[in-house]
Parts: sequence; structure tokens; C-alpha cells
Amino acid sequence: MRMYDIIQKKRDGKELTREEIEAFVTGYVAGQIPDYQAAALCMAIYFRGMTVEETTHLTLAIRDSGETLHFDGIQGIRADKHSTGGVGDKTSLVVIPIVASLGIKAAKMSGRGLGHTGGTVDKLEAIAGFRTQLPIPEFEGIVNRVGCAIVGQSTDLAPADKMLYALRDVTATVDSMPLIASSIMGKKLAADDDCIVLDVKTGSGAFMKTLEDSKALARLMVDIGKRAGKKITALITDMDIPLGNAIGNSLEVVEAIAVLQGKGPEDLKEICVALAANILFLADKGTLAACEDMAKQAISDGSALETFARMVAAQGGDAEWIYHPEHFPKATYSQKVLAPRDGYIARVDAEGYGVSALLLGAGRNTKEDVIDMTAGISLLAKTGDFVKKGDPIAELFTSSKERLESAAARLLEATFLEDQKPEGKPLILDRVE
Amino acid sequence: MRMYDIIQKKRDGKELTREEIEAFVTGYVAGQIPDYQAAALCMAIYFRGMTVEETTHLTLAIRDSGETLHFDGIQGIRADKHSTGGVGDKTSLVVIPIVASLGIKAAKMSGRGLGHTGGTVDKLEAIAGFRTQLPIPEFEGIVNRVGCAIVGQSTDLAPADKMLYALRDVTATVDSMPLIASSIMGKKLAADDDCIVLDVKTGSGAFMKTLEDSKALARLMVDIGKRAGKKITALITDMDIPLGNAIGNSLEVVEAIAVLQGKGPEDLKEICVALAANILFLADKGTLAACEDMAKQAISDGSALETFARMVAAQGGDAEWIYHPEHFPKATYSQKVLAPRDGYIARVDAEGYGVSALLLGAGRNTKEDVIDMTAGISLLAKTGDFVKKGDPIAELFTSSKERLESAAARLLEATFLEDQKPEGKPLILDRVE
Repeated sequence: MRMYDIIQKKRDGKELTREEIEAFVTGYVAGQIPDYQAAALCMAIYFRGMTVEETTHLTLAIRDSGETLHFDGIQGIRADKHSTGGVGDKTSLVVIPIVASLGIKAAKMSGRGLGHTGGTVDKLEAIAGFRTQLPIPEFEGIVNRVGCAIVGQSTDLAPADKMLYALRDVTATVDSMPLIASSIMGKKLAADDDCIVLDVKTGSGAFMKTLEDSKALARLMVDIGKRAGKKITALITDMDIPLGNAIGNSLEVVEAIAVLQGKGPEDLKEICVALAANILFLADKGTLAACEDMAKQAISDGSALETFARMVAAQGGDAEWIYHPEHFPKATYSQKVLAPRDGYIARVDAEGYGVSALLLGAGRNTKEDVIDMTAGISLLAKTGDFVKKGDPIAELFTSSKERLESAAARLLEATFLEDQKPEGKPLILDRVE
Repeated sequence: MRMYDIIQKKRDGKELTREEIEAFVTGYVAGQIPDYQAAALCMAIYFRGMTVEETTHLTLAIRDSGETLHFDGIQGIRADKHSTGGVGDKTSLVVIPIVASLGIKAAKMSGRGLGHTGGTVDKLEAIAGFRTQLPIPEFEGIVNRVGCAIVGQSTDLAPADKMLYALRDVTATVDSMPLIASSIMGKKLAADDDCIVLDVKTGSGAFMKTLEDSKALARLMVDIGKRAGKKITALITDMDIPLGNAIGNSLEVVEAIAVLQGKGPEDLKEICVALAANILFLADKGTLAACEDMAKQAISDGSALETFARMVAAQGGDAEWIYHPEHFPKATYSQKVLAPRDGYIARVDAEGYGVSALLLGAGRNTKEDVIDMTAGISLLAKTGDFVKKGDPIAELFTSSKERLESAAARLLEATFLEDQKPEGKPLILDRVE
């Protein structure tokens, strides 16, 4: 099987076989297929697409390119959620404790990566002492005892994805539905959970900007998951507006705690409850409505918060911080951003808000960057709110005073004030099962 | 200017600017742009195509990627012909002496390359003593004195083309009209002739299999040539049947000499006269009809043959061989291929005939292969001829007896006998100016 023939076949719009796709992935990881042939194939896939069948073969080949996890030491049904990423998305910190408090086992491996803020494990490191690298037996032990644990992703998982992503990133072949779906699902399936709920974001702060694309991606990933024998559902959720009011690492942990305490912003709460309910539903805990009630109950009776505190303690963090979030260190500098005129916030560019947080130090531009845990944005007004000229619309936090000015400018640039109140939009736009 | 943005722009179907195309070619030759980005761009070009404007920019960037020739020491109008390659194509050996005998200067640089037979310079090396590497002043001197000289192509001409071709060859991006046109014209324009006549072959033995594709390629190359300030015309000529009756290096030189002697096969003569006439026409020697008469006259009065003999002598070859081709060494082994049944030769797969010649030792499979100058095929019956079972349709020649069997089988496989006489087809199918 020659790589040339595989490229030519896809170039000519024909369907690749499982053997051809596996030969590509294993040959590429083994260094037998050069980058330039892989790049040509990725561009051909960009133009010709892939069938669900082909995309599933690619996903499974990516999954099998490194070690796959089994967690034989964990008893019970294992579930996970995965978000395609957005600004202010701290749902894992809420959803995982909720479902764990209701008997689901969540052994979550989460990435760091580059972004406007850190990933889930970065955020958790805002808690003093929290360990994100655990030996497998200890990780399994915590999951069995507490119900959940969240650690950094092993570097040996799906190495084909890392290689392919790095290549796609420099050859303008990132925006290809089958390549996106196989990248996400290849990693996800390597963790071998029983139930998976996907949160596919759509809008100005998401990777997928249109509802149509988001639905297509969700459909494809759900189909792949099913073919791989998983129980899987996807929610399509709005990311035209940052989720919740906090953007930034410790700010987001504090906001997640607020939701677990029965407080916190409504939008964040609604999505977290929906994601948790869908996991419980896949795990046969009852009807979707019943599962939603169970999730709300886990918040109101404090059991989800307690589970989170126990997980933090088991992973070396100070559980006192969970019950008393005022322990989290505050940023040295802060500044309010004021409305330049009267008007409704008609819309925001959520990605622009993310960039503003990045400018404050909340995220990484390069792998070597050190995250400023206290940096970020607290939103004081959101889309649909009316503000008078001079009213604060956000408060910025950072350890570096000189970062405030450009971050404030970027945030204002991403905020659109108009005289008309904008129409409301549902938060959860669709459900794909 | 980032290569990423250039790839993305072409991927999205937008037109690249001259600056972007130059940045790609110069960066690639300088080793600053990696193969994988160049491969991604080539595949994007494969799918999106290029405008004439873009293709011209690419051609000129390829031309300017190495040294360009000027031959300031040559007086008069300089012309060249270029063929897109076919089986049995020895037209350069006839056309160049014709036009040189009529006052045109032809300083021809020709490739060797891989193929069913050697390139023009390989063929000339069948003449004992013929030197294909000459210092520029000597080369110019011969052109001034004799009217023409033919040498091997300098390795410094258009290095971007060599790099790009090698990459396209392993990434399934060879079959792209703008990439083919810029590859041919980039090299051709580096020689800076005043007039260029292209012979674009079409059919089973050509790179372009359909008339439509051949016309499109011819149109594109002529347009590029004009934008580069050249006088240029293309003929589209048939390559469903090998040209002439000889395939193989010394066999083809002998056949070219026969045409220059006023003998030789009609098809070869017709194309050679047409190509020569078009060069003379571009050089303002008269109407096309008058130029055709001049070309025929140069054959019938022996002046073209004399020019060829003088060129051979000037380049160190034995001119006696030109007047007495029986001097050319003969192959050690020969074998006639016999018709397996009665019938008309309805059609042949010209490429299959080429492969048969290659099997006999006439060409190179790898750069290191040594050509057997005496090896090849003499066609004794061609498309349209009626043969009886057992009649010879071809004679094979080689220095290695064991090669005869597979070559004969390949030739028979490429010969299609039927009861109906096939319809005739014109040799020159179109002219693009």
C-alpha cells in the first residue's frame, strides 16, 4: 500500500478503506510517511471530505496510535463530558461533581493547551496544593472512593492526533469536519468511558461559528461514538456570549463553586444541569426530566459541592477553599471598563473577550508561557442588558498593571452597544443523539 | 507574508498576488518554507486552479529561481521548439537544422530525464564523439557559425522547478494544469529565446490524454509566453500513434537523418515541416504557407542536412555518419513481432510501445540506468494498415537477448487488430496562437 496511491484516491474523491487509513496513521506515527505526504492528504480530505465510515476508521486509528486506558480498577459506569471549547467554559468543574455525587464514576483526563484561559487542569491548579499528575492506582482509588478525579492528559494518549494537529495547524487544514471530529473523538475514545456527553459550542466565541456547522460536527461525532460502541449524546450550546460572568482561572473556579452552592449565574447553571442530566440519562438513571431533577437536587442538597471538596482534598488541595472561596488569592491590579454611551449591549464578540483575558495573562500564547492564575475578567453586564454611559460593564484583573490598557481596549472593541434591545436566544440550541 | 496565509488564501479559492507567489517560490528554494507547506499549497492549487495571471507569476518566479541565460554573444533571432513529450518524438533533430539553415539561431538546451527513450541529448550521443556539454563561449560560437547547437540543460536553470516537480511527484499533485504549464514554461523562459513553438502532444502516448486538456494546456502556455514578451505558438499534434517508425536512440537519429535527406516517414516529415514553418513565421520570414515552402525547400536542397552535419562536426561528432547513417552501430539481437491474426491495426497504445522500448533498454527507469543506444523498435505496420496472420508488425532491437520476450509481449498487448479499417485522423489537430 503506497501513500501516493492513498493521496491520489482521496484526491479523486474515492472512499478510503480501513486498511488504507490505518496504513496512513501507523506509517505517519512511525515516521515512515513524511510530513509532506500527510499534508497533501489532509488538504485532499479538506476538499473531498470523508464519509462517516472513513471518519470512524480515522478516529479509531488515532485512538489506537498510542496507549488506550481501561481503568480496570474502577467499579461502575464511567462517564465523561467534552466541550469543543469556548470563552468562560468552566462546566466540567460543576458537571463532574454533580454526576459523581449521583453514583457515576468520572475519571477525567483533561488538556492544558493554548487558549484564552488555561484548560480545566490549569484552572484546578489555582487551588493551593492541587495535584494534576497522579499514578494510575491512586487516580483509580480516588475515583472509586469519591466518584471523580480530574488529572492532566497522559502524553502517550493518541500521539497521531498530536502529530496531525501540529501539521494541520501550519498547513491550513484545521477547518475540516472529518479531521476535527476524528481529532476530538480519537482522544476521547482512548479513555474508554461508557457514556460521553459532548458540548458542541456554536457562535462568535466557538470554533464552529455557525449553527449548521456545529450540528454537522455534533452529528458526526455522535455517529462515530456509536460505531465505537459508546452511549453518546451531544448538546449544541450558544457561545455568542461568554458562559457565566467569569473569564480567567481562579475566577472561574470561584464561579463554578458558586453554582455548586446553588448560586452563580443562570446561564452557566442551566448548561451544567443539562449536561449532567444527559450523562445520568445515558447511564440509565431515569427519564431526562427525572435526571434533570436529580442534578438540581444534587446542587440544592449540597452533595455535589461536598463531592467536589472531597475530590479536591483527595488530590492534595485545600478543601477549605471550596467552602470558603474567599481564600483564593486576588489579583494585584484591577480596573473597571465603562460603557462609552447609553444603550443595550446588542451583541459581543465572545472571542474578543477571550483575547482580552489572554492579554491580562489568563492564558498561554506559547507552551512556555506561565499563566497568571488571578488574571481575568468579571462581566458586570452582558448581552441584553441596558447600561448608561459610564456604567461599568466589566472588571479586569491582572498581576501586571501595564496589561490593563490594551485588555480594556480589546474588550470595548468586542462590545456592541445599540438603542434596540436585542432578541433573546435559547442557550441550548439542539440535542443530537 | 506567512506561508500559512498563502495556503489558506488559495484553499479558499482566492487569487494569489505576484508578491505571494514569489514569496512562496523564493522561500521554498531557500529552504525557509518546508516541504509540507509546499505540498499543501500544491494540493490546494490542484483543487482551486490558478488564473492565467497567477500561473504567469508562478512561471516567472520559477524562471527566476536560478540563473537565466542571455547568450549575448549570439547574433540574430533566437528560436526554440519544445515538445510535451511522446513516443518516437525526434522532431528537434529535424526542426532545429531546418530553421538554422534558414537564418534562425537555435541555441537549444535539452533535458535527459527519465522516459521510454533518452532525451534529445541522449539521442545525439549515439553519434560517436558528440559532446553535449560545452562552455558557453564555445556554444555561442557554434550557434553563430553554424546556426544551431544542442547541449544538455544546465543544472542551475529553474531549480524551483526541480524541487517542485520532485515534491509533486510524490504527493499526487502532478496533474494540475497551472503546475504543469508553469513547470514547462518556467524552464523554457529561462533560456530567453525570442520565438517559441510548442508541440503539445495529445493521445495515448502523451501526458495529456484528451484533446480538450491538450488545448487548455496549449492556450495557457501560449498566454504565459505572451505575457513574458515572447512570440509563441503551439501546435496540438496526435500522439495516439508513435511518431515515425523508429523508437530508440540511434534508430531515431537515423530516422531523423532520413527525413533531412527527403526520405523518412510522412507523419514525422509533416509535423517537422509544420513546426519549422511556425518558427519561421514567428520570426517574420513570410506567410505561414511561404514558410512551409521554405522548410520543405531546406530539406529538398540538402541545406538542412548540411547544417545538421556541420553542427555534429562542430560538437565533436563524426559528420560522415550523417551522410552515411550505415555507420551507426547495430544491435546485437533482433526479433520480428508477428501479427497473431488477420486484421487492420485499429489502434495502438502508444505508451505501451514506449514501455516495450524501455524494456529493450532504450530508456532509463532510474537516473543511474545506462541507455542501450542500439536498443529500440522499428515499426513495420502502423494504425490503419492491414496485416495477415504471421506478417511482421515490428522489429525489436537490443543488446540483451533476454529482454526480447517481455518487450514483444508488451508490444503485442498494445496493438489492437480488428476487422474494420479505422477512420483516419489528422496529425495536426489544432494551432493555438
